[in-house]
Amino acid sequence: MNKNLLLPQIPYGTKDFLPRDARRKRAVENALAALFARWGYDEVVTPTFEYLETITVGVSADLVQSLFKFFDKNNAILALRPDMTTPIARVAATRFRESAPPLRLFYLTNVFRQEQAQAGRQCEFYQAGVELLGAGGPAADAEVVALAVAALLEAGLTNFQIGLGQVAFINGVMAESGLTPDEQHRVKQCMVSRDLVGLGEILAGSALSADTQRLIREIPLLHGGEQVVNEAYRLVNNAASRAALDNLADIRRLLVSYGVERYVTFDLGLIRDFDYYTGMVFEGYTPGLGFPLCGGGRYDNLVAAFGAGCPATGFAMGIERILLALERQGLIPTEAPGGVYVAWSEGALAAAIATADRLRRSGQTVELALEAGPRAAAEEARAAKGYARLMYCDGDVAQD
Amino acid sequence: MNKNLLLPQIPYGTKDFLPRDARRKRAVENALAALFARWGYDEVVTPTFEYLETITVGVSADLVQSLFKFFDKNNAILALRPDMTTPIARVAATRFRESAPPLRLFYLTNVFRQEQAQAGRQCEFYQAGVELLGAGGPAADAEVVALAVAALLEAGLTNFQIGLGQVAFINGVMAESGLTPDEQHRVKQCMVSRDLVGLGEILAGSALSADTQRLIREIPLLHGGEQVVNEAYRLVNNAASRAALDNLADIRRLLVSYGVERYVTFDLGLIRDFDYYTGMVFEGYTPGLGFPLCGGGRYDNLVAAFGAGCPATGFAMGIERILLALERQGLIPTEAPGGVYVAWSEGALAAAIATADRLRRSGQTVELALEAGPRAAAEEARAAKGYARLMYCDGDVAQD
Repeated sequence: MNKNLLLPQIPYGTKDFLPRDARRKRAVENALAALFARWGYDEVVTPTFEYLETITVGVSADLVQSLFKFFDKNNAILALRPDMTTPIARVAATRFRESAPPLRLFYLTNVFRQEQAQAGRQCEFYQAGVELLGAGGPAADAEVVALAVAALLEAGLTNFQIGLGQVAFINGVMAESGLTPDEQHRVKQCMVSRDLVGLGEILAGSALSADTQRLIREIPLLHGGEQVVNEAYRLVNNAASRAALDNLADIRRLLVSYGVERYVTFDLGLIRDFDYYTGMVFEGYTPGLGFPLCGGGRYDNLVAAFGAGCPATGFAMGIERILLALERQGLIPTEAPGGVYVAWSEGALAAAIATADRLRRSGQTVELALEAGPRAAAEEARAAKGYARLMYCDGDVAQD
Repeated sequence: MNKNLLLPQIPYGTKDFLPRDARRKRAVENALAALFARWGYDEVVTPTFEYLETITVGVSADLVQSLFKFFDKNNAILALRPDMTTPIARVAATRFRESAPPLRLFYLTNVFRQEQAQAGRQCEFYQAGVELLGAGGPAADAEVVALAVAALLEAGLTNFQIGLGQVAFINGVMAESGLTPDEQHRVKQCMVSRDLVGLGEILAGSALSADTQRLIREIPLLHGGEQVVNEAYRLVNNAASRAALDNLADIRRLLVSYGVERYVTFDLGLIRDFDYYTGMVFEGYTPGLGFPLCGGGRYDNLVAAFGAGCPATGFAMGIERILLALERQGLIPTEAPGGVYVAWSEGALAAAIATADRLRRSGQTVELALEAGPRAAAEEARAAKGYARLMYCDGDVAQD
């Protein structure tokens, strides 16, 4: 037990939240939980690990690569959940047997990915998210985008933008392009990684007409306000892409009703994970953070994998990323000193306990000294600990 | 993706908290977090897994057996934490370099043990706990016992008892008994498992005098109010046991000052985990639950294992056990129907969104219908979903 006198390390990609950070984390999480509840969403808490075969339903190959895996006592393979969408879909498939759709669920929990750690994204990190299941129309999509905006505002951020795309727009272009499936895959990968040079090379090496090449090269540039949808409409004439644009226009109209359109920018090159999403997709960005605050979209095929098919839309946001953005943008409220430090002279502990008890019952934060000491030392301790007020118990009398 | 149309199972010993349970869990956890903060405790959040060699510092062999273990990418062995005392001790060893003792820390988190699942104790379960580090006297021990009582009351329980023991009392008796170390170990195991028959057999097979045998057999029966300490005092005359009894009497006097003595019963046969605890130990019980609600005590050697030796005392309580006790005792507050269901006729979604937005800003819970429908259907949906009030938007007008 005494062999190791060096401070132990924690595993790669994990962190301790010391009191200041833990307090901020709890405050943001509670604010989000209350917000989601006000929008009619119910929390679910699922196991930290699931059977590997459950987890791998509907997640990308990259995510499967990054799983922390281990065995149970029957040698079945378990994995720490890499996100909450699959567990939520699993719960929803059960719950749909009891209640009529739509189902609105939220979660606030940690997820695990064994990959390169970075600021705001460790191998264990915390997510808040919602899933709206059983509703296919733009009203559901607009609700989750508006709720993502409300959540970022509720967390204390003010300067952020939601980029809004539609995977069916790109899929429509791909389907009629004449690109081989392999070329389509590589084109989409370039779009996910915003690699315009690579995109140009793939197109130049393809058999596509100059017009089609130009169209595909323009997709990542279709970024901006309302007019982007009209512009894109003129560029394509396949039915799937046009239906996707109509869908985005419908969603935008509803976002105006929610009063959040100023937070939303169209970004038709945004496709996120291409196997998973089937319609509208979005990501939230804030200045000074090199990765999205949140992301989500419509995924109409995942819940079907669990036997109760239904349309679904939702998002997840990174709690550490929100905390980091608040910190970088100077938006952390300073903690006003408060609370009472109750100290006592020899023999006055009983009086000090009674004083502490009374103050706590009135809702105040109270730290009780554990040893007797003179008033001057108590005043020093109060100042060092950052309490606003000292109550010093001398004999039976408690004094400010 | 469509191969598995059966509902997937979750791993042995895990559970989903569906909305009603998740809501109760969050309510109890938030009440406890606020209580601990009012008593001057700061939250810490540590990684879900640690290096095996960190976890095994100071935990019992049984607990090491029950670890979920896996490898990181460098083939170091990781383990899901089986409790929070070791991680807290690790954090404390770091924090003591920054701030003067005592340190008051709390946590609210999940822990993992691969063992027989039972009601209120799955392989993954949730704990709330506090650790008070750097203070050795009875004032610290009384504070954590009083805080455990306050926490059970805050959680909504009313009918419970704290059993209070002192491992140094038994250790003193063992040290002067003449039992071999192996016999001492077996005697303590019988006390942990309350196996009085086994205890009698070990003693009958030992070389102890009849008086000493009688003394050891009486220890598990030393259970009750104040007078138990006096009774025990007459039975022993070694200094260690008598100091332990003086310590219990001091703690009890302070618990009277806290006004919680009616929740506390002496139980000198209570020793919990014998390697870990060094002084006062306690467990909380409630009728109808066959296992403790909470447990804790003084462990003055654990933090030293991380290089910053200090006395320490604390407790952990099982969140699921508290929820189960509340349920079995009929103490779950009924959820008063509240909230508003906002529905709309064709063309009135914008008005409905504006209505929902206004109500949410005033703090109300609002679910917005996602499809147009007649008022009668909206009223049915409101009733089925359990909202107190319907707002129906027809044209631009929202009506109750």
